Amino acid sequence: MRQPKVTVLGGGSWGTAVASVATRNTETLLWARDADTVTELNERHTNSRYLDDLPLHPRLRATADLQEAVETADVLVLGVPSHACRAVLTEAADHLRPWVPIVSLVKGLEQGTRSRITDVVSEVLPGHPVGVLNGPNIAREIVQGYAAAATLAMPDHHLAQSLQRLLSSKLYRVYTSTDVTGVEVAGALKNVFAIATGFGDGLEAGDNTRAMVITRSLRELSRLGVAMGGQERTFSGLSGMGDLIATCTSPHSRNRRVGVRLAQGRTLEEIAAELKQVAEGVKSSSVVMELADHHGVDMRIAHEVDAVINHGQPVEHTYRGLLREAPSHEFHGDAW
Amino acid sequence: MRQPKVTVLGGGSWGTAVASVATRNTETLLWARDADTVTELNERHTNSRYLDDLPLHPRLRATADLQEAVETADVLVLGVPSHACRAVLTEAADHLRPWVPIVSLVKGLEQGTRSRITDVVSEVLPGHPVGVLNGPNIAREIVQGYAAAATLAMPDHHLAQSLQRLLSSKLYRVYTSTDVTGVEVAGALKNVFAIATGFGDGLEAGDNTRAMVITRSLRELSRLGVAMGGQERTFSGLSGMGDLIATCTSPHSRNRRVGVRLAQGRTLEEIAAELKQVAEGVKSSSVVMELADHHGVDMRIAHEVDAVINHGQPVEHTYRGLLREAPSHEFHGDAW
Repeated sequence: MRQPKVTVLGGGSWGTAVASVATRNTETLLWARDADTVTELNERHTNSRYLDDLPLHPRLRATADLQEAVETADVLVLGVPSHACRAVLTEAADHLRPWVPIVSLVKGLEQGTRSRITDVVSEVLPGHPVGVLNGPNIAREIVQGYAAAATLAMPDHHLAQSLQRLLSSKLYRVYTSTDVTGVEVAGALKNVFAIATGFGDGLEAGDNTRAMVITRSLRELSRLGVAMGGQERTFSGLSGMGDLIATCTSPHSRNRRVGVRLAQGRTLEEIAAELKQVAEGVKSSSVVMELADHHGVDMRIAHEVDAVINHGQPVEHTYRGLLREAPSHEFHGDAW
Repeated sequence: MRQPKVTVLGGGSWGTAVASVATRNTETLLWARDADTVTELNERHTNSRYLDDLPLHPRLRATADLQEAVETADVLVLGVPSHACRAVLTEAADHLRPWVPIVSLVKGLEQGTRSRITDVVSEVLPGHPVGVLNGPNIAREIVQGYAAAATLAMPDHHLAQSLQRLLSSKLYRVYTSTDVTGVEVAGALKNVFAIATGFGDGLEAGDNTRAMVITRSLRELSRLGVAMGGQERTFSGLSGMGDLIATCTSPHSRNRRVGVRLAQGRTLEEIAAELKQVAEGVKSSSVVMELADHHGVDMRIAHEVDAVINHGQPVEHTYRGLLREAPSHEFHGDAW
């Protein structure tokens, strides 16, 4: 059998990092919308818009032609922002060969419908096996060649094992799972909790508080994820706890920084200007509360983040709001 | 009913912090072996040996008289180092009133027997209900009044709720549990993994690697803890994941610092001299491997820590040792 060719849609930092890893294993093509990025990727082997001058794999090729990118793909990796997924997939549908598996890297849910991205994929491209790759993966560090790990979830375990070989390297460890829902929900919703952790850090609440907030956040995330169909233990794995720890402790985490800045009294507008983009957790803070209501899950930490982001509550009230309630049984209790 | 009096045995940082919290709720007596510490606690309300000049609760009283401390106790909190527990409890046995509940703060197992400390308590003081308090609790931050949380595990949930009221404060949240084994094992063994995290930090392996090592460490800790009789979900709670995150990310963590220094090429002797004491994880690294063998649990990360601490393996070989093996299914796989 010839080696399957991989196409990655989306020239952001995470798509570029995954493409650069896959290039070690097989012929890999990166589709980016921006022509300058494509030229730079092909000629200088860098993606300065997202990854400064970090050297990418020199055999990685890029194109701005979606048709070319899709029709040559034996494996399609989806790395575009959540709001662009449906349009890009619809355009890709005419060119994609049957049975080609699709792996989503997207963190977030579809705006408006609150659909998981793998559900959008199945709607637009029915009949294609679809999975998710997620983990504590700060793109910059993957490209720099630091050791990291992630979970690849596909309904079919054998297919997951085949794709695992294409998307991993000696230093980028990809574990397999069949819990697509759990892995996807964890990645989509974690950023809200990174903002909550940032609140604590911005208020200089200390290391104990940070560990407490991360731990109780994971409990909220797990309960919602299980209500949405995920498996509980996925949330104590790399795509749940692992990703949450990285997002909540790394100085590179944009969402955590949003929380820190809000706690320091900056406005969302000032923060968006400083970061040059709206952090995913800001967009998903209200979506999480809608999902919590829909599934009847009490989420006190996410509720406080929503109150600050969308209802003008000062950050100092947040921790007071959380502390009002007495703790109960760690796992049976209703309170946070 | 009059308010139960609390006695804390042990004037270390963690015992002092818990005693200072309990003093807010009820009459509390701290037993310390060192006469100077007792005098300082009573006169200056500080414990400079462990907590610099941080002000403790002014109503907290201390004594060097074990008989006085034990015979007035309605609740006994055990905060002496693991190697001293049996001797102190044996001396206390003659003075303790019947039915008095005992709460262990001890992190570690008994040297030689590898017994859990609550088992030592039950052996020496049969008939007393015994539980454990554990969580992401850097003592210094508790005393400073930062928000924190912990889990109090007792076999009897009603008793746990009564003790919860005595040992918590508005800013120190104590959740209840009935999984004494899980909470105790998590606290006793986590320090080995803090050393592993320190290896990565000392080698400057990045935030992804740290999150990966913590996540996969928790999996090892959970598997051993479940084999020893703990409940799986305890390990994703405050005393498992929470404590592990605090220990593995806080700059105050002694065990993490041991790992960092070893990675920087320092010897254990130099490190012990710098820290002025042997870190708990150094002592327990071989014990964890004995337990792993006994219970038939494969623990690759703990194995590498043991190899460095007890068998002279250089730290750079550690990560190579871990990376040799291909990742498999995230939860069903045998490999780390």
